[in-house]
Amino acid sequence: MHRLASELFPLTRSLTGAGYRRTLELLEAVSGPMQRHRFATGERVLDWQIPPEWTIRDAWIKAPDGSTVVTLAECNLHVVGYSTPVHRRLALAELQQHLHSLPEQPTAIPYRTSYYAGHWGFCLTDEQRRTLPDGEYEVLIDADLGPGAVELGEVVIEGSGDGEVLLWTYCCHPSMANNELSGPVVAAHLAALLRERERPRHSYRVVFGPETIGSIAYLSRFGERLAARLVAGYVLTCAGDPGPFTYKRSRRGDSLADRIAEHVLTCLGAEHSVLDFVAVGSDERQFCSPGYNLPVGSLMRTMYGNYPEYHTSLDDLSLITPQALGETLRAYDAIVAALEANETLVGTVLYGEPQLGRRGLYPSTGGPSAALSAGRQQDIMFLLNFCDGNADLLAAAQASGRPLSALAEAADLLREHDLLRPVAPAR
Amino acid sequence: MHRLASELFPLTRSLTGAGYRRTLELLEAVSGPMQRHRFATGERVLDWQIPPEWTIRDAWIKAPDGSTVVTLAECNLHVVGYSTPVHRRLALAELQQHLHSLPEQPTAIPYRTSYYAGHWGFCLTDEQRRTLPDGEYEVLIDADLGPGAVELGEVVIEGSGDGEVLLWTYCCHPSMANNELSGPVVAAHLAALLRERERPRHSYRVVFGPETIGSIAYLSRFGERLAARLVAGYVLTCAGDPGPFTYKRSRRGDSLADRIAEHVLTCLGAEHSVLDFVAVGSDERQFCSPGYNLPVGSLMRTMYGNYPEYHTSLDDLSLITPQALGETLRAYDAIVAALEANETLVGTVLYGEPQLGRRGLYPSTGGPSAALSAGRQQDIMFLLNFCDGNADLLAAAQASGRPLSALAEAADLLREHDLLRPVAPAR
Amino acid sequence: MHRLASELFPLTRSLTGAGYRRTLELLEAVSGPMQRHRFATGERVLDWQIPPEWTIRDAWIKAPDGSTVVTLAECNLHVVGYSTPVHRRLALAELQQHLHSLPEQPTAIPYRTSYYAGHWGFCLTDEQRRTLPDGEYEVLIDADLGPGAVELGEVVIEGSGDGEVLLWTYCCHPSMANNELSGPVVAAHLAALLRERERPRHSYRVVFGPETIGSIAYLSRFGERLAARLVAGYVLTCAGDPGPFTYKRSRRGDSLADRIAEHVLTCLGAEHSVLDFVAVGSDERQFCSPGYNLPVGSLMRTMYGNYPEYHTSLDDLSLITPQALGETLRAYDAIVAALEANETLVGTVLYGEPQLGRRGLYPSTGGPSAALSAGRQQDIMFLLNFCDGNADLLAAAQASGRPLSALAEAADLLREHDLLRPVAPAR
Repeated sequence: MHRLASELFPLTRSLTGAGYRRTLELLEAVSGPMQRHRFATGERVLDWQIPPEWTIRDAWIKAPDGSTVVTLAECNLHVVGYSTPVHRRLALAELQQHLHSLPEQPTAIPYRTSYYAGHWGFCLTDEQRRTLPDGEYEVLIDADLGPGAVELGEVVIEGSGDGEVLLWTYCCHPSMANNELSGPVVAAHLAALLRERERPRHSYRVVFGPETIGSIAYLSRFGERLAARLVAGYVLTCAGDPGPFTYKRSRRGDSLADRIAEHVLTCLGAEHSVLDFVAVGSDERQFCSPGYNLPVGSLMRTMYGNYPEYHTSLDDLSLITPQALGETLRAYDAIVAALEANETLVGTVLYGEPQLGRRGLYPSTGGPSAALSAGRQQDIMFLLNFCDGNADLLAAAQASGRPLSALAEAADLLREHDLLRPVAPAR
Repeated sequence: MHRLASELFPLTRSLTGAGYRRTLELLEAVSGPMQRHRFATGERVLDWQIPPEWTIRDAWIKAPDGSTVVTLAECNLHVVGYSTPVHRRLALAELQQHLHSLPEQPTAIPYRTSYYAGHWGFCLTDEQRRTLPDGEYEVLIDADLGPGAVELGEVVIEGSGDGEVLLWTYCCHPSMANNELSGPVVAAHLAALLRERERPRHSYRVVFGPETIGSIAYLSRFGERLAARLVAGYVLTCAGDPGPFTYKRSRRGDSLADRIAEHVLTCLGAEHSVLDFVAVGSDERQFCSPGYNLPVGSLMRTMYGNYPEYHTSLDDLSLITPQALGETLRAYDAIVAALEANETLVGTVLYGEPQLGRRGLYPSTGGPSAALSAGRQQDIMFLLNFCDGNADLLAAAQASGRPLSALAEAADLLREHDLLRPVAPAR
Repeated sequence: MHRLASELFPLTRSLTGAGYRRTLELLEAVSGPMQRHRFATGERVLDWQIPPEWTIRDAWIKAPDGSTVVTLAECNLHVVGYSTPVHRRLALAELQQHLHSLPEQPTAIPYRTSYYAGHWGFCLTDEQRRTLPDGEYEVLIDADLGPGAVELGEVVIEGSGDGEVLLWTYCCHPSMANNELSGPVVAAHLAALLRERERPRHSYRVVFGPETIGSIAYLSRFGERLAARLVAGYVLTCAGDPGPFTYKRSRRGDSLADRIAEHVLTCLGAEHSVLDFVAVGSDERQFCSPGYNLPVGSLMRTMYGNYPEYHTSLDDLSLITPQALGETLRAYDAIVAALEANETLVGTVLYGEPQLGRRGLYPSTGGPSAALSAGRQQDIMFLLNFCDGNADLLAAAQASGRPLSALAEAADLLREHDLLRPVAPAR
């Protein structure tokens, strides 16, 4: 995953354009085939409109003495995303109005975009900005804004049931590592792992798009289907730094996405914190807009905004580690396993206990038995009493303090003995 | 307010009578015009009957040596309220059966009434009582109990909507300051402030009556209207001492009256405590009787019964301060403002976020913007996600930890941009 | 109770058989007449089948030198319950496979049964087991397994209403005191106390049976009636040791059985702990199986499994004390009293307070009155406001922090004055 991130790092990404499309292709090489969804410039998507496609070829500032101040080639962040084309000379005072830097982080180049306002601008370190001499500068932004498309890539793993799970990530950020190449590279590998599963119960949709306009566009086309079928969903972002896990709940606060993620984090024994939904953040804002209110949370490491390198050139490849990326991938894989294991079951003998002895599920001489471990025996007794068809195995896990995985194994044993059966179609 | 209380202090008040009526007139001079509601002696009101009117002209005890022991003129509390007329001589031993004093507060004259039992009696300090010599005493209570009326005064400020707010106080207590002239003087000034409001959403009813029989009578005539229209109500009592605020909840415990009062007290940063409803207290007992179960609480300073001067001559004008009366008035005014501001709103763009950028409600270049403060920007994002039409702005304030007043301002901005609209008629 | 336990101690009890029947007879001498319910060998009861009747006459092991190792006469626990008959010689190595002892409790004879598996075996102390010399042993178990019946004894105290209360205990354990003679002897005496009550509101059913198969059989015949009528039920077990009380909740967790037991324990001021239901334990497992889900909890002293003598010969008569048995009996009697007192009442004056003064229920001269204690006066005010017909007196007790018994007395006074009436038929 770290190697893939390194490959993707230098591409000129934005909401649209060649660098963005090349990014999808490199991810697809890992994830397996993606369906593409295209939304043409000018198309209405919910309350929004698809922007023009931005093609950036070159950009630089030259100092009064002709020396180069910044160039696109040196760092993609130097040019404000979606800058309009410009080539002119201008005095420092006027140039200053088009420069962005961070006085409190003097060595960082900030990340700025201006998708919908028709501006142009450059970003640079505050250190460098303070050394600019007076005089006439030359600026060039060789870019086009023209008809094109917002494009999404979607890997679909078909399940046996009607339920769907959404794994969403975004790849419109240029040359930053944790936010946001970590999400796409984990998502691509997760898609590969999902392809290895034998016919899962749920269908899995791993979707790569640009942030905000991507989820808006996806919802405008597929929101109705998601609302009808979505079991749980997660936004994969900030997935590669070695900080503790952060889980941000869906707007519902107790959706299956939330319950599963929190249970899995507890079972993994991983240091983590859980945050309630707020309407500031990433694409979960769209999935959790009040009309949809979908069960979509976000499992991250250190959350966007909570680390100083966020949205600057300091968020580079040194900030993400192979180990952290691996841990995040394993956590999402455990979430998938839990979603697959979680069912609502009902006993076939609800009035009085079933006689376990004659089924070989109870020690035959009143003391401890070797046939079943003490834990398995307790799980069996617990499930037979708990499973009245009104609550799922995850609720059983929460009520008993046992891992869902252990209960699912005990449940399988009881299903073999025809003592439990699923309540509803796999969903 | 303190000056008004001083003017009212010496009047001979009871459930009925000339002193009570004079009290209403002096309050009306501040509150603005009152409608009067009269309930004639003998009229059935719910489970009760309107008592006769009590006219008290003079009352005294003369000692065996002819010297005056106590007189009404000296202190209204010396005569038991609603005493039947008497003029006779009697031995000290018999007189003692008609005397009331407080051995544990030897310098206090207690406040006693006997509205419905046909007794007579005198109250005096225990210090004085212990000095009474043996011998024959002469007692006079020059009073009438005859046909008359219980009378209530009601100031009505009409609102634009159907909802009503009740601000209730009582003024039947003679010559005591905190309990109870503080409630009436704050209520009179609150009525004056309400008159200055431009067409409020709710109608406000500021009602002055005698305690218990007054609220019983009011409910018997207007209870059905209150049950249909009451948004929130408060009993104004013990409003003038400088102790911390006490809020006593309505019987429901989470009525709008309770939620608003508790939010306002928190926002004011005022030291306060919150008590659950108990069926001991003042007129909230009637409004919160189980049949009505109205959203009526009571915002006080130190609650009746919780200060040693309560219901004695020690509850005098020195116990209430202009500053405390002013703070209480401001708290009630803030409650009114909150009731006016609190609406249930719903977004006009519920599926995905509205595009704020093109409405000038989002910074155009990815960084901080000067157009909106960071707090306002967050409130906007919060409200657009929160306002699904199922909860009011107060719930939004509680969920976000922000003051209702700040959210109401952000909501106004969003209404100007047609992004929020009220769910229901103003109520 | 301790004397009765001593009488019962030596009998050879099991699920069935002469010793079990003799036990019922001795209990009946105290409890009063029992109805007998018989379930014949082979009968299907829910998911189970009634086992054969086991008659044990003699059992022993003789050592290679002819000396007696263990005999039934010495201790009933020496023979595994429901052992099949055997009389043969065998080497120590083979004998060992039929021996049960507790290496961690070397002086205890364990209690073992093998009801449904057709085994035979002996139990002995680990100390003794370790001294057995090599050689040929002779074993005898003179027993029959043949057609017979599982038999239950039920004492019924008829109530005036439709509700039923179940007091369940089990008496299939041989020669152990706390688990389980304490439950049966307390239950027998509780039945005797119940017989002394004048026509209770609820019917009481005190049932004595064998564990598990007994409750399964009872439910198979009477479960529908219980489901329709049961107000509350308790399993009486581990009732005689001097440890603190343990209350194990019903599966519902907040059933009337639970609320009453917890209130009574708090009012008694007895040290106690409360445990949520788990599907491991005694007959509450059957009553609380998900199909029935009855309001059945269990009030114990030290719970089965939580004391080291449990299910061994060390659980002897020294473990239970007359005082502890008496305390448990009083606790159950208090539970009965609370179940009888608990009703749902509704005021006859719901709109405004009733005028208490004219009914002599309020002090006539504003101060404290001698007619009613301050506590009674407060209880009256509380109940008149609380009793809206939606919650029972126990809820009133919980809301007010007052004992149910005190509120029930105040409620009786208000019923005499026609100010409260029961909402529903006595149930």
